[in-house]
Amino acid sequence: MDKPSLLELLASVQRGDLTPEAATTRLADLPFEDIGHTRIDHHRALRNGLPEVIYAAGKTPEQVAEIFARMAADGTSVLATRATPEHAAAVHRVVPTAVYNKLARTLSSPSADPFSPASDPCICVLCAGTSDLPVAEEAAITAEHFGVRVIRLYDVGVAGLHRLLAVRDQLREADCVIVCAGMEGALPSVVGGLVGVPVIAVPTSVGYGASFAGAAALLGMLNSCSPNVTVVNIDNGFGAAYTATLIARSAHRTEG
Amino acid sequence: MDKPSLLELLASVQRGDLTPEAATTRLADLPFEDIGHTRIDHHRALRNGLPEVIYAAGKTPEQVAEIFARMAADGTSVLATRATPEHAAAVHRVVPTAVYNKLARTLSSPSADPFSPASDPCICVLCAGTSDLPVAEEAAITAEHFGVRVIRLYDVGVAGLHRLLAVRDQLREADCVIVCAGMEGALPSVVGGLVGVPVIAVPTSVGYGASFAGAAALLGMLNSCSPNVTVVNIDNGFGAAYTATLIARSAHRTEG
Amino acid sequence: MDKPSLLELLASVQRGDLTPEAATTRLADLPFEDIGHTRIDHHRALRNGLPEVIYAAGKTPEQVAEIFARMAADGTSVLATRATPEHAAAVHRVVPTAVYNKLARTLSSPSADPFSPASDPCICVLCAGTSDLPVAEEAAITAEHFGVRVIRLYDVGVAGLHRLLAVRDQLREADCVIVCAGMEGALPSVVGGLVGVPVIAVPTSVGYGASFAGAAALLGMLNSCSPNVTVVNIDNGFGAAYTATLIARSAHRTEG
Amino acid sequence: MDKPSLLELLASVQRGDLTPEAATTRLADLPFEDIGHTRIDHHRALRNGLPEVIYAAGKTPEQVAEIFARMAADGTSVLATRATPEHAAAVHRVVPTAVYNKLARTLSSPSADPFSPASDPCICVLCAGTSDLPVAEEAAITAEHFGVRVIRLYDVGVAGLHRLLAVRDQLREADCVIVCAGMEGALPSVVGGLVGVPVIAVPTSVGYGASFAGAAALLGMLNSCSPNVTVVNIDNGFGAAYTATLIARSAHRTEG
Amino acid sequence: MDKPSLLELLASVQRGDLTPEAATTRLADLPFEDIGHTRIDHHRALRNGLPEVIYAAGKTPEQVAEIFARMAADGTSVLATRATPEHAAAVHRVVPTAVYNKLARTLSSPSADPFSPASDPCICVLCAGTSDLPVAEEAAITAEHFGVRVIRLYDVGVAGLHRLLAVRDQLREADCVIVCAGMEGALPSVVGGLVGVPVIAVPTSVGYGASFAGAAALLGMLNSCSPNVTVVNIDNGFGAAYTATLIARSAHRTEG
Amino acid sequence: MDKPSLLELLASVQRGDLTPEAATTRLADLPFEDIGHTRIDHHRALRNGLPEVIYAAGKTPEQVAEIFARMAADGTSVLATRATPEHAAAVHRVVPTAVYNKLARTLSSPSADPFSPASDPCICVLCAGTSDLPVAEEAAITAEHFGVRVIRLYDVGVAGLHRLLAVRDQLREADCVIVCAGMEGALPSVVGGLVGVPVIAVPTSVGYGASFAGAAALLGMLNSCSPNVTVVNIDNGFGAAYTATLIARSAHRTEG
Amino acid sequence: MDKPSLLELLASVQRGDLTPEAATTRLADLPFEDIGHTRIDHHRALRNGLPEVIYAAGKTPEQVAEIFARMAADGTSVLATRATPEHAAAVHRVVPTAVYNKLARTLSSPSADPFSPASDPCICVLCAGTSDLPVAEEAAITAEHFGVRVIRLYDVGVAGLHRLLAVRDQLREADCVIVCAGMEGALPSVVGGLVGVPVIAVPTSVGYGASFAGAAALLGMLNSCSPNVTVVNIDNGFGAAYTATLIARSAHRTEG
Amino acid sequence: MDKPSLLELLASVQRGDLTPEAATTRLADLPFEDIGHTRIDHHRALRNGLPEVIYAAGKTPEQVAEIFARMAADGTSVLATRATPEHAAAVHRVVPTAVYNKLARTLSSPSADPFSPASDPCICVLCAGTSDLPVAEEAAITAEHFGVRVIRLYDVGVAGLHRLLAVRDQLREADCVIVCAGMEGALPSVVGGLVGVPVIAVPTSVGYGASFAGAAALLGMLNSCSPNVTVVNIDNGFGAAYTATLIARSAHRTEG
Repeated sequence: MDKPSLLELLASVQRGDLTPEAATTRLADLPFEDIGHTRIDHHRALRNGLPEVIYAAGKTPEQVAEIFARMAADGTSVLATRATPEHAAAVHRVVPTAVYNKLARTLSSPSADPFSPASDPCICVLCAGTSDLPVAEEAAITAEHFGVRVIRLYDVGVAGLHRLLAVRDQLREADCVIVCAGMEGALPSVVGGLVGVPVIAVPTSVGYGASFAGAAALLGMLNSCSPNVTVVNIDNGFGAAYTATLIARSAHRTEG
Repeated sequence: MDKPSLLELLASVQRGDLTPEAATTRLADLPFEDIGHTRIDHHRALRNGLPEVIYAAGKTPEQVAEIFARMAADGTSVLATRATPEHAAAVHRVVPTAVYNKLARTLSSPSADPFSPASDPCICVLCAGTSDLPVAEEAAITAEHFGVRVIRLYDVGVAGLHRLLAVRDQLREADCVIVCAGMEGALPSVVGGLVGVPVIAVPTSVGYGASFAGAAALLGMLNSCSPNVTVVNIDNGFGAAYTATLIARSAHRTEG
Repeated sequence: MDKPSLLELLASVQRGDLTPEAATTRLADLPFEDIGHTRIDHHRALRNGLPEVIYAAGKTPEQVAEIFARMAADGTSVLATRATPEHAAAVHRVVPTAVYNKLARTLSSPSADPFSPASDPCICVLCAGTSDLPVAEEAAITAEHFGVRVIRLYDVGVAGLHRLLAVRDQLREADCVIVCAGMEGALPSVVGGLVGVPVIAVPTSVGYGASFAGAAALLGMLNSCSPNVTVVNIDNGFGAAYTATLIARSAHRTEG
Repeated sequence: MDKPSLLELLASVQRGDLTPEAATTRLADLPFEDIGHTRIDHHRALRNGLPEVIYAAGKTPEQVAEIFARMAADGTSVLATRATPEHAAAVHRVVPTAVYNKLARTLSSPSADPFSPASDPCICVLCAGTSDLPVAEEAAITAEHFGVRVIRLYDVGVAGLHRLLAVRDQLREADCVIVCAGMEGALPSVVGGLVGVPVIAVPTSVGYGASFAGAAALLGMLNSCSPNVTVVNIDNGFGAAYTATLIARSAHRTEG
Repeated sequence: MDKPSLLELLASVQRGDLTPEAATTRLADLPFEDIGHTRIDHHRALRNGLPEVIYAAGKTPEQVAEIFARMAADGTSVLATRATPEHAAAVHRVVPTAVYNKLARTLSSPSADPFSPASDPCICVLCAGTSDLPVAEEAAITAEHFGVRVIRLYDVGVAGLHRLLAVRDQLREADCVIVCAGMEGALPSVVGGLVGVPVIAVPTSVGYGASFAGAAALLGMLNSCSPNVTVVNIDNGFGAAYTATLIARSAHRTEG
Repeated sequence: MDKPSLLELLASVQRGDLTPEAATTRLADLPFEDIGHTRIDHHRALRNGLPEVIYAAGKTPEQVAEIFARMAADGTSVLATRATPEHAAAVHRVVPTAVYNKLARTLSSPSADPFSPASDPCICVLCAGTSDLPVAEEAAITAEHFGVRVIRLYDVGVAGLHRLLAVRDQLREADCVIVCAGMEGALPSVVGGLVGVPVIAVPTSVGYGASFAGAAALLGMLNSCSPNVTVVNIDNGFGAAYTATLIARSAHRTEG
Repeated sequence: MDKPSLLELLASVQRGDLTPEAATTRLADLPFEDIGHTRIDHHRALRNGLPEVIYAAGKTPEQVAEIFARMAADGTSVLATRATPEHAAAVHRVVPTAVYNKLARTLSSPSADPFSPASDPCICVLCAGTSDLPVAEEAAITAEHFGVRVIRLYDVGVAGLHRLLAVRDQLREADCVIVCAGMEGALPSVVGGLVGVPVIAVPTSVGYGASFAGAAALLGMLNSCSPNVTVVNIDNGFGAAYTATLIARSAHRTEG
Repeated sequence: MDKPSLLELLASVQRGDLTPEAATTRLADLPFEDIGHTRIDHHRALRNGLPEVIYAAGKTPEQVAEIFARMAADGTSVLATRATPEHAAAVHRVVPTAVYNKLARTLSSPSADPFSPASDPCICVLCAGTSDLPVAEEAAITAEHFGVRVIRLYDVGVAGLHRLLAVRDQLREADCVIVCAGMEGALPSVVGGLVGVPVIAVPTSVGYGASFAGAAALLGMLNSCSPNVTVVNIDNGFGAAYTATLIARSAHRTEG
């Protein structure tokens, strides 16, 4: 339940469409709804600015489907990340209109309109190589789900600097930049030196040998010599997009 | 050299106070000034939004003093981090008005006015225990240097939750929250669940044994279950404040 | 062989139901019974307070079945952990009444009565997220097997503090608290600050990237700022329950 | 402030020795007292069963002295761990009767009587070698501070099993056993097999080369094949004693 | 080619059964035989005391079969370790009499007599738990292949000390003891304290979580407090047996 | 596009076979060609001396096929590394003449002539054991693709020094030596002491237990006591060959 | 107390020089003598073949002096390792004839005769570079203390193979070879291929950067491709010599 | 002894200035000269192309002075690396003309002429920041000692790309490029993309927190996406220069 939904609920009471008793019942459920294996946090959007998202990894298809359906029933725009085809199949059985993006491994509810119609907030999502695409797309889809415009700039690794320099103008449009890179993880430092906004670095598990499944890229990013770089967990495109959304939206509030 | 300084330079040309030739000479120096051991980046503020800061660790007192003096001569407000008393002594010999903060290990030029007079942007700096103070203060001093208001909330570790809950109202004022914590690094996750703005987590090297000089806290923060948490390097209070400043300032631009 | 079984044996001798010679033979077997690949420790309950439990991982289905049958034949209540469906099938062939719990991966003998009928000792088992359920259930089933009452409190992660605060009363009933958490492993510190009994932290291998299969949670828990937290191996729900049982039972002995 | 102190306060009100207003003022201070760098948690004993202890490492001598004096003024029996001679000197200036134990690095207030006069609860503290003594003594002093009887069994490493077997009877008196060991950390497993109570393992940073400052012992203990072993951080004698105290005391409550 | 084979070759020359030219040709081949992917070291037994053994892991079934056949053709007793059923099938096609041991994963040539008929040299092979059996058997089979008598003592982990103490007499027969253990790897230290001969410790990859696939056991063994313990790689039963054979055989040479 | 192709293009303009406009169009494409998921770097050979090579791992068969076809259409000799049979099948559908080497996992275009006809530059590729062959072959095929003569010296591990000493003369022909070794990675140090040219060490992921998938070999090589040894990533035969080619070719330029 | 001392004691009883009561008293002390901080193991030589040695690191000078004096008073030949000049000074105060070797950091009692007069057992101690000398000398002095002849072969690193090949004849005299090496730790593999006796590898903490204080050498040695190599802890010259002594002595017993 | 020295020796024989007997004696010494703690490798230049260099770390001042003097007496140009002021003082006592470079920590003999007068071979040495200077200078001095021209390009980190792009022309002069960088180690990848010659990456131990003393930079460089990058140990400026010298010299031989 997000802010507009809550206002609508209270307006219904004002209009007499809803008795105070019924409203109380619904509001009493707000803190969380206990469905056994999970406590759904319906009022997260009120408390944290953005609605809850389902992290599908480690949950059974049935659990994901149940949570997805409950949240959709509440009228919220729903997003699930790290969803396998099995998760998608289970969700489709209960919410046939849900959309599955195989590359980004996301499932989302079919709101004609994403979460917020505002188109001003804008981020760039960069990735260093073709293999980083799934992480980059998880980030891009998530930000779009939260109503942010996304400019995708892919395959711009540092060993071919001219590719990166060619997209400098697009970089300057962004309120925040997400950079996904595996291997040595050098791209965020270089991008950080080119822009005046926060850069969120996402190490990816792309690489082999001494990449140690993303640890090399992670360490590289944490030691970045560009001070506008912060870092999230390996392959955590979702987390990067969540924070980038908060940054981009706050930069476009009618009042600061 | 920051934007106002550049505008002033160009205005001087317009007013006839400066010949175009002299202006050209000064601008030609802009990309960087090579003083042998270091290439000073005078136009960083133009490119990246905030002026360059001197990272004193690993530089000799003489090198720091020389860079500090060159930058101060350029009219910029100067900040040096990780400065030892020896660095401070050397700087004082060439810039007697410089201010040394022993706890935060910072040296700053004595501008009556910090970098920007705007007082709207605001961040909170939290730390979990008394031993995290040097890192927290490095963050706080840096943000204040960049013209951001700082609310300090210290010794609010998660094992005494009531201390944290008591400062909830102050947390809600911030455009961005910095959380410094060593040991298990759990504080950012808990804070992340209480606010709707980005949380920048700074692992500190406080702890012993299996804290592995901050690695435990670092890993904890990277694995945070709060999606609005991003992370910087161990003890990197400066980097956290740099990004927090960019976030807080963009949230208060007259136009988003 | 546990204490009552031993007393019964000796009583049989007293009553003349068993010749001293026969009793001697049975007692001579006590230290252990060598069945080739394994030496079964029948008198462990006498020496260590709780009977031996079969750790099925790394044993063939046939080996587990053989050990299970021997122990069951001895009259003891039997428990096997980390049992796969293949283990379960093999055991069912020799002990058809054995109960298999697929989520907790446990196999237990069908004693109408668990090990001890006492219901006073009580522990809480918490977990941070849905994916921690298998480890939490292994702990809960084990403690129940040893005659301890278990309060399950699931999906109470630190990023939604209100969920945890809502179960505070139940926490206060416990003689010992087990906390299972993956990712950053912050939950034990927070719980440790809320209760006045020992907290046993179980890091789970839930997470991805820099969670390093539970190492991040493990390190976090070892560095807990709550002094009533001790730690067991990653995913070791059984060990946590074993120690929690010892604590809870000693708190309810008729004499201290 | 512990439970008896609180009861005394309320009794004073009942007796008319203290006005409700004055009592209110004192109780209002309870949650914590903010002395700038630190928030002192006076009512911890009420909430967690044992009073707060000062962790001196990373605090300046002045900070430790100030906190020590405030807590002593409150009438509580005070303990500080990881105290250097400099900490001791500063505390002696404000609390001249404080006692400094150089080997255990503890500072304690000179209560004729330790925290609780009860002498029934009893623990054993073992160590594997002479070099583990400081950690073992930190544990022993802490438990004694909390009113628990301590049996010290030192230099009983596993390579000379007869030394350990010689103290078996003393092991059986304990409600809980603390085992401090560096190098390979094998002692807790062996002890765990000899007793029927919880064993708390404390890895020490004793060793060289591949001991990696205690990490080898820590890993060994986490992988113990004895299920009654739980583990605390490297060198954390205090934490082990804190939990051991909780266990030993609950085993001797007049009612469970 | 081992020493007796060489003596036989030279005796043939002496007897006139072999021309010096033919002998020269065969001896010229000795250093190694290049079969493309591999250089077979036929005279290793002369140089190193024991003949070469085939390490099958990482080789194709065809490669193993080819090497096995070449060595068998040379009259040497052949052993291959880490052999899969696929390796065994390929070898059986070219050497139908080869013997495959599935548990130990060894393939050996069917010499009625092992390498040396001497039965005096004797070693003990211990393992801590049932899951260590494959490694222990690799060691036992290897030593027997080299003509050493092997006493197997399995499932004698340190948490049940009485099991170990019960086999003390057998331990005293050995010229060298091999100890295989996973988890905390404590067994070699305890055994090392009971015997006066070298102990070779083999960490096994048995365990879970913080055992890190045998690294915990490895570190424990390297830090053993028993000075007669040396260590080989994780799961390296073959290497342990190779060195144990050298030790046991040199202890029984007719002259030292 | 490599240097001869460029010269041919310009010659066509000179000859009038190509209008300057058409040439401009083709050259304008040079920096890179954006095909959505990938930006193909056609002029890499001009900038870096050697043409781009396709790293197939992490790319779908379709992506590899598309890139391969585009580069082949450009007239360049194409190489793809880490190609699976699936990649090979997809490439064969669009470039039926492509050659797949299963052991080396390479796909190459069927140029009668490799990249450069010069046969003077020469390197040696050594490997320590049979299991290192795939990495060694990746290196050898790559160098041959770039026009360098390759001497293969396989199965020359340090435990049989005579095998290595037997190939000393061949080592002396090389302009650069590549050494692939897993396990302890000792071979490069020994080879480095025998030659007067650069040695490029390639750790392989061959080994088990404490080889940690090549990390042991990698560390050994980085610590080599031979100063002419440099190191590439684990299993990176391609990178070693790339640099070795640059070295060997520069040693045979008509002008130094 | 070693075997001859015990025989002498019993002979005294036989001769009537010692009453059975007095003998009993002395023998009753045997298992260990508890001097507070340490339990001295006087009968270790009986149980383990070699007398106890004092590991001085982590003990105070006073503790070392007290243990040294007690053992010397018992008539045993005493050795202390890892002794600092402070330890030496304290020991000299109570045993003025003790000998301190500064390079090897050993203290030994001045027995005209070492432990055993036998001169047949012989080992080689090799080291790769000048910096490994302290570890090599600790090994050499220890073996000599136990009555073994030592051939020192220093500075024979693998990058100059001719140095090593020049000492091959001396290597062949040894019953066991100890190889000390830092950096890449390649020497044991090469030596292992040249001899037919056990090789004990001692990684040293010599090196920098990615040697990680000996971890690289340790890993290299554990992964040795020579099967006669076993490994001890980093810098553990003592442990290597202890086991080498057991091997060399058993090879020269009058009967095996 | 290098090639010209050897030729001169033989010419002396030809001219009759030296009897064949005397020459033989000198040449017999060549393989190495054993001075007790060290075996000096006089003919290394013959075998490996470049003369031996003294690695001073871990050697006593006296040892370094003795080796330095012996080598200088042989007429070779001598270099010692990692030399402390104490080493310098000891060398100056025996070779007063030796030159000490405090920043680079090198000691060299005062040859008016460096090793080879050829000035054609040329390398670039880059470093990312001021703190990397000691490592960069060790590399530069070493290469100059071997007769190679060095272009120094310092403080050109990737966060200010314009600084790097400004030196592109100088980069193109080099036969080989050495790049020294700490922190994230991104510079070699970027440089690798700009040049067509080998890039040797030297990770430096510059950085803090998660730089883990250079390990982050090392991993980054090993995972470089530029295939012309090879890596040496952390801070190993000497090794990088040694290999770069071999490359640069072979590129300028009169015939390849």
